[in-house]
Amino acid sequence: MAKPLLQIALDNNTLSDAIRSISQVGHEVDIIEAGTILCLAEGMEAVRCLRALYPNKIILADTKCADAGGTVAKNCADAGADWMTVICSATIPTMKAALKEVKDLQVELYGDWTFEHAKQWKEAGLSQAVYHQSRDALLAGETWGEKDLNKIRKLVEMGFKVSVTGGLEKETLKLFKGIDVYTFIAGRGIREASDPAQAAREFKEEIDKYWD
Amino acid sequence: MAKPLLQIALDNNTLSDAIRSISQVGHEVDIIEAGTILCLAEGMEAVRCLRALYPNKIILADTKCADAGGTVAKNCADAGADWMTVICSATIPTMKAALKEVKDLQVELYGDWTFEHAKQWKEAGLSQAVYHQSRDALLAGETWGEKDLNKIRKLVEMGFKVSVTGGLEKETLKLFKGIDVYTFIAGRGIREASDPAQAAREFKEEIDKYWD
Repeated sequence: MAKPLLQIALDNNTLSDAIRSISQVGHEVDIIEAGTILCLAEGMEAVRCLRALYPNKIILADTKCADAGGTVAKNCADAGADWMTVICSATIPTMKAALKEVKDLQVELYGDWTFEHAKQWKEAGLSQAVYHQSRDALLAGETWGEKDLNKIRKLVEMGFKVSVTGGLEKETLKLFKGIDVYTFIAGRGIREASDPAQAAREFKEEIDKYWD
Repeated sequence: MAKPLLQIALDNNTLSDAIRSISQVGHEVDIIEAGTILCLAEGMEAVRCLRALYPNKIILADTKCADAGGTVAKNCADAGADWMTVICSATIPTMKAALKEVKDLQVELYGDWTFEHAKQWKEAGLSQAVYHQSRDALLAGETWGEKDLNKIRKLVEMGFKVSVTGGLEKETLKLFKGIDVYTFIAGRGIREASDPAQAAREFKEEIDKYWD
């Protein structure tokens, strides 16, 4: 079982605020995500700036693309993104079109997706999935449970590299012990810590503790 | 049966190209859409520019928002958008959070949504839905058929204002005759015409012909 990677989600509302966030913690993480909020607020200029700051990190544009996959993905790649995301309710042709343009593509799992869909994504060539607790659902009181862990295990068994996100705190990570998580994605759990670099290091120490 | 409105989708890759498109045709349409491609490429600056150009038109930000509904919607409203879109696989809390921030919200129908979901959207306070042929699915050879029309009719019966989009040409509109379509959304069918304003007028003449 490989050690999970650590990704920071920059769900900032402005480019300057995202740059402030990432300057404090970029050197500590494996993957830098231009969050959906940031992409929609600032466009691909946000990705261009992250690429300029971090020429050697994996940069992900979290577009949650639902349509026009080829065009959106080309724009992301041209801006310097390695990976992008599509929403699970996008059609297979959208996913295939996007996959041609970027180095890798993640399907974002929201709503009533099924393992039958997951089989189709696999057949379409996708190898990454992002298992979510919706931010709004978390705010409405939902949380991580055994039903989530079972779905993640099943996706891993199907051969997906599964990233996990949604209200992750350092203390949450051990819930996933024994699961071959590909990446833990943290946002405010790191960004809004009093010392974000220290918070990222603590996430990594927690990963070291539970994954060899 | 009210006469369907006409919306132009600006799925341009750059702000300058979108401004070039809309300058030719903005005065002819009812609703101006900052398309997903444009929002992701240029951010909310695109919405701000459209609002600056058209202070009195309905402006829609087609974010296809999947999460963080309140934040994304506030950013859209602050930029001057009247309406925005959420993807059908967003959670109900995401939709409710977004609905609080904008004047109206449209749910974008992609993938395997069900009428049971539609009932939940209605209960959550949504009154607008966008029935789609995915651009990528159209490119893959799919087209409008009776199964689409029946779903649109059923959504209208449920009380939704249903907008229709996906590869619409002037000649396509009559397929929807007898259905209480709220808005026809055209993109390249108008933008890429040799005379976009004339193309928009022809769309409206076609609407006049089939709807009283």
